[in-house]
Amino acid sequence: MAAPGFWPRIMIKVGIVGGTGYTGVELLRLLVGHPRVELVAITSRQEAGRGVAELFPNLRGHLDLAFSEPDVERLAGCDLVFFATPHGVAQATVPALLARGVKVIDLSADFRIRSVPLWERWYGQTHGCPELVAEAVYGLPEFNRERIRGARLIACPGCYPTSVLLGFLPLLEQGLADITDLIANSASGVSGAGRQASIPNLLTEASDNFKAYGVAGHRHLPEIEQGLADIAGASVALTFVPHLLPIIRGIHSTLYATLTDPEVDLQALYEQRYRDEPFVDVLPAGQYPETRTVRGANWVRIAVQQPQGRGKAVVMVVEDNLVKGASGQAVQNLNILFDLPETLGLDAPALLP
Amino acid sequence: MAAPGFWPRIMIKVGIVGGTGYTGVELLRLLVGHPRVELVAITSRQEAGRGVAELFPNLRGHLDLAFSEPDVERLAGCDLVFFATPHGVAQATVPALLARGVKVIDLSADFRIRSVPLWERWYGQTHGCPELVAEAVYGLPEFNRERIRGARLIACPGCYPTSVLLGFLPLLEQGLADITDLIANSASGVSGAGRQASIPNLLTEASDNFKAYGVAGHRHLPEIEQGLADIAGASVALTFVPHLLPIIRGIHSTLYATLTDPEVDLQALYEQRYRDEPFVDVLPAGQYPETRTVRGANWVRIAVQQPQGRGKAVVMVVEDNLVKGASGQAVQNLNILFDLPETLGLDAPALLP
Amino acid sequence: MAAPGFWPRIMIKVGIVGGTGYTGVELLRLLVGHPRVELVAITSRQEAGRGVAELFPNLRGHLDLAFSEPDVERLAGCDLVFFATPHGVAQATVPALLARGVKVIDLSADFRIRSVPLWERWYGQTHGCPELVAEAVYGLPEFNRERIRGARLIACPGCYPTSVLLGFLPLLEQGLADITDLIANSASGVSGAGRQASIPNLLTEASDNFKAYGVAGHRHLPEIEQGLADIAGASVALTFVPHLLPIIRGIHSTLYATLTDPEVDLQALYEQRYRDEPFVDVLPAGQYPETRTVRGANWVRIAVQQPQGRGKAVVMVVEDNLVKGASGQAVQNLNILFDLPETLGLDAPALLP
Amino acid sequence: MAAPGFWPRIMIKVGIVGGTGYTGVELLRLLVGHPRVELVAITSRQEAGRGVAELFPNLRGHLDLAFSEPDVERLAGCDLVFFATPHGVAQATVPALLARGVKVIDLSADFRIRSVPLWERWYGQTHGCPELVAEAVYGLPEFNRERIRGARLIACPGCYPTSVLLGFLPLLEQGLADITDLIANSASGVSGAGRQASIPNLLTEASDNFKAYGVAGHRHLPEIEQGLADIAGASVALTFVPHLLPIIRGIHSTLYATLTDPEVDLQALYEQRYRDEPFVDVLPAGQYPETRTVRGANWVRIAVQQPQGRGKAVVMVVEDNLVKGASGQAVQNLNILFDLPETLGLDAPALLP
Repeated sequence: MAAPGFWPRIMIKVGIVGGTGYTGVELLRLLVGHPRVELVAITSRQEAGRGVAELFPNLRGHLDLAFSEPDVERLAGCDLVFFATPHGVAQATVPALLARGVKVIDLSADFRIRSVPLWERWYGQTHGCPELVAEAVYGLPEFNRERIRGARLIACPGCYPTSVLLGFLPLLEQGLADITDLIANSASGVSGAGRQASIPNLLTEASDNFKAYGVAGHRHLPEIEQGLADIAGASVALTFVPHLLPIIRGIHSTLYATLTDPEVDLQALYEQRYRDEPFVDVLPAGQYPETRTVRGANWVRIAVQQPQGRGKAVVMVVEDNLVKGASGQAVQNLNILFDLPETLGLDAPALLP
Repeated sequence: MAAPGFWPRIMIKVGIVGGTGYTGVELLRLLVGHPRVELVAITSRQEAGRGVAELFPNLRGHLDLAFSEPDVERLAGCDLVFFATPHGVAQATVPALLARGVKVIDLSADFRIRSVPLWERWYGQTHGCPELVAEAVYGLPEFNRERIRGARLIACPGCYPTSVLLGFLPLLEQGLADITDLIANSASGVSGAGRQASIPNLLTEASDNFKAYGVAGHRHLPEIEQGLADIAGASVALTFVPHLLPIIRGIHSTLYATLTDPEVDLQALYEQRYRDEPFVDVLPAGQYPETRTVRGANWVRIAVQQPQGRGKAVVMVVEDNLVKGASGQAVQNLNILFDLPETLGLDAPALLP
Repeated sequence: MAAPGFWPRIMIKVGIVGGTGYTGVELLRLLVGHPRVELVAITSRQEAGRGVAELFPNLRGHLDLAFSEPDVERLAGCDLVFFATPHGVAQATVPALLARGVKVIDLSADFRIRSVPLWERWYGQTHGCPELVAEAVYGLPEFNRERIRGARLIACPGCYPTSVLLGFLPLLEQGLADITDLIANSASGVSGAGRQASIPNLLTEASDNFKAYGVAGHRHLPEIEQGLADIAGASVALTFVPHLLPIIRGIHSTLYATLTDPEVDLQALYEQRYRDEPFVDVLPAGQYPETRTVRGANWVRIAVQQPQGRGKAVVMVVEDNLVKGASGQAVQNLNILFDLPETLGLDAPALLP
Repeated sequence: MAAPGFWPRIMIKVGIVGGTGYTGVELLRLLVGHPRVELVAITSRQEAGRGVAELFPNLRGHLDLAFSEPDVERLAGCDLVFFATPHGVAQATVPALLARGVKVIDLSADFRIRSVPLWERWYGQTHGCPELVAEAVYGLPEFNRERIRGARLIACPGCYPTSVLLGFLPLLEQGLADITDLIANSASGVSGAGRQASIPNLLTEASDNFKAYGVAGHRHLPEIEQGLADIAGASVALTFVPHLLPIIRGIHSTLYATLTDPEVDLQALYEQRYRDEPFVDVLPAGQYPETRTVRGANWVRIAVQQPQGRGKAVVMVVEDNLVKGASGQAVQNLNILFDLPETLGLDAPALLP
């Protein structure tokens, strides 16, 4: 029998589809240090044949792997495949991989929304694989840990949804908020827009600037409302306004809810709910979270306040959108899926300053 | 009779008390280009004798003036004195200047709140000049233009209050919002914290970062609630959460209000209300304001939206906190006070990119 | 007779070809405040019909003009046309405009280099208008003011060249430097790369970062060496290494030269040479220039130092690459060309902080 | 006999004196993940009693340690003590620790310069412990690895010196550069100035800006010249101009040297010299280093170029000033000192984007 903290060194063979974006390179950064993962393939149609470290020089000396053509046969040799692709891509390949016994963690939006018509309305296309939508498990460990353990297909939550869901969760589980009038005022670093050429995301346009966007309707709205409804056990109405921060990484969500019981001890409620969570940190009363305190780390830090005792809860949540909001959460799901310590490969502190 | 756009070149003698902070240098930047202003004194106890352009090298070649000791006799020779001082300072000197016939525009918080006990509670000190509080006119031209014209003492609005008041004004004037539950989620650039040494505002601490602060209670809360109540004609309840943006200048306020009439045409309402305002720009439907579009300019840009038609108004407001949020608004007040064109010296476009 | 500072208000009709880039919008920002300029046309094939202020919201309320198709007939009605186009474009249209009596200030590189073969080697294309190259005047007022006055076609200097030439000029005019071994270590804000979609200039890639580029050979090298040779009266050898700064605007050049006479009073030399220049500011001994002190302004600020008295001159030069490095210098040339006060429309101080 | 990669788990007891600055928190970040280090004490007179994670929230959940009073008795229980203090502090305590058999790695400048009078001139104070200066080993592993192994007292190199020395080293070892005329044009992120309140390092002053400083003479000049002379075996003359970058972390040095043999294959020279170095990465020809590719990592990345084949070598070097320029190099020294794999605890890739 292995000693505590020691387990048989069977390596998990991992493939990544679509490794040229920011969630792709972030998966690589985390996985090269993961003691139980062996990277066997990373695909990119566009960059096939090019060394990964040529595109991402931070990986020079850490990873000797080249991009390859997406090829189901090769990926079928993996134990697990991550999809770090734009929406619409995973749908086409996931069925073949599942059929070959490969587990899938999809970082895109393809399998997050259970209502196929709703998905099709917000993403403006026909769903390519509706038959698997019901099976997919929404990979938010703090809410779905047990279902994740047994899953074949995990839909990794979006960046904004992770922060909003974890922020409202303790209130909604206890029925302490008016769920007909929730507000999420969120702000994200520019990496949330991905690694693609665009004028609005140039340094010259996005730095020294701040703006809202997608106010009329953002694709994360139905995903968040579905998750909030799952938690509350009833449908909810959310006003969600995302903003663009002139920083590389980081999401800050400021949440507003009318309390049904203004006497509740919010600090105790949050501390108790998250006491055993390895990646959710409830700050001491009076401290507020800063995005930089989770830069590069899988932590979510949360503070809750009832300003002036007026019956309105204000919850502040920070995460690194590329880590807990994407690739770190994906690795956390991997750890759960393969019965590893949940923090394995995810235990480095944030980079501060 | 003077031709249109031509008026007698009588110069207004202006003094500035406390010119070493950011609102001070911003006053200077605006006033050196103002065709009707003659700068006669700028005081600083600490920097007395030092050339202004030595401290602020952007003024080299534009201004040949040295800081002097604050001296009532010298200031009494001015037509107008600006106070760009921390709160608590103007109170001591204003009475003497008014007595000498000098007009005063106070950029600090000393005369903004009409309830002296409320002021004393939030600012933690005894008010040094309560007898003038009632006379002071709150210098928000879009609401108070006529009263400003005849004033001796103008309390220039705070940076956050300007953005929140102008954003809610059309709704509240028309009784279209539930004033028991207003929310202002605001974010400010670091210059709002002034020009003083502090660890949290170092580039190493404040850049690549975002956080809320003052959630439990910020000094601008009572000022905003007073202004909102003046507009609405009834007391209001506001939840106000300020955040710190990693930019130098700029405030973005995202305002939330429950509509009493969800059928109202918000776009028309806002456009109509601000049609004749020289510094308030209501954006076309579907465009959202960016802080950089007002960088260095006295404009406020506003957009309004009712997301998903759910009965909640979302108003977005941007301003440059040092211009329309402080020194530019002060110059606008000067122009009104001396019956000049309101845009005089304030007509340069924002610096973009 | 007009009073001092008053001159007949004949307006100069100005057109801009290629107004959608950063030098285009910067020309607009400067010209809307220029009292003697009437903007009659701004062209863009791609944006024809669209309001200028729609693309550049900082101009809302300042400019009511739409982009139009480039059309020689329309441009021929102007007194002056600016080309704010990529290289290779002006060559095709300039002859027709000159033939119609229109003056041209070209902000691109088309007419900067007198040797057509050299131009063709560095720009990798055949020159479309070699017959006008010899006539074009290099628009660096501090060196060429008299020739500018009578010019029909002005080649506005590049951003890096302006800073390097003005930095070395006093030394080279006096034969005080070893011209076989000059070094220019320059750094530019990202706006120097123009307003076009590209991955390396995304905020996510270019912010919180610094790198050299073009070390093997940058297109500004032959332009700078030609200018230095003109000043020195002999050919020079320059090592030029540009770097990319994570800022929007600003160039800082640090220049190194071996002194032929280490006893020379560098401070006096520079102060004397630039005493009468309206836009060159030699800082007092011991102060160093910062890019932010010229943000948005047409100033060049210079400091010179002989570290440890070891016979090596270090010259530091800052400019705003979009102003003195492009559009501001173009307006300065316009003022000279039309015999206006050289600072007209260029007299606003830099935006600081 | 232990298997490869496996060694007895005896923990090294480590103390840190002066843990409230940026090199202190960076040591903590690296050491909490170091498998052979046990942190037993971290001192701060000012913060004694306060939890470390309260000051540095990125360490919440990683480190349960409070600052304690600096106390020789307690520190004497350590195997190794790091000094992360301002200069002048280590001098007072080091002798007592060495006498108790404790090894010392000093990150300050106290023991870097072998000439005590030279040190005293540049640091403006009397050296408190001149008798240990000769014994101290300059902790640059790439040059001094063998001497580090047996040392009791290691003077960890300065941030600028590390980048300049490693950049010039291959050239100087081979006698390929004119050592009477070397130039180092360096630029550092603001964290190099430490974690202390100061107006010039506020975000409002240092962001969106670039400037040179210390041009007349910077304290790192004598340290670099001493190191270069050690490498070259003869005295050298360096012109060193540091600049301040608007980024948090990162140093970029651009080095210029006149080649004594312009035919030398610089690329091969550098690749060969650093082939076996675990933390020096020579980039392929034509690629240039970016500071972000070493953000948070102990790597130095170098490129070398001979522009236009004119006999001048240009070397570009990047490092993270807090890692390879301070705390990471200190841990690398620890690993050498205790005969551990040199990369232990230092093997995480840089955080990019």
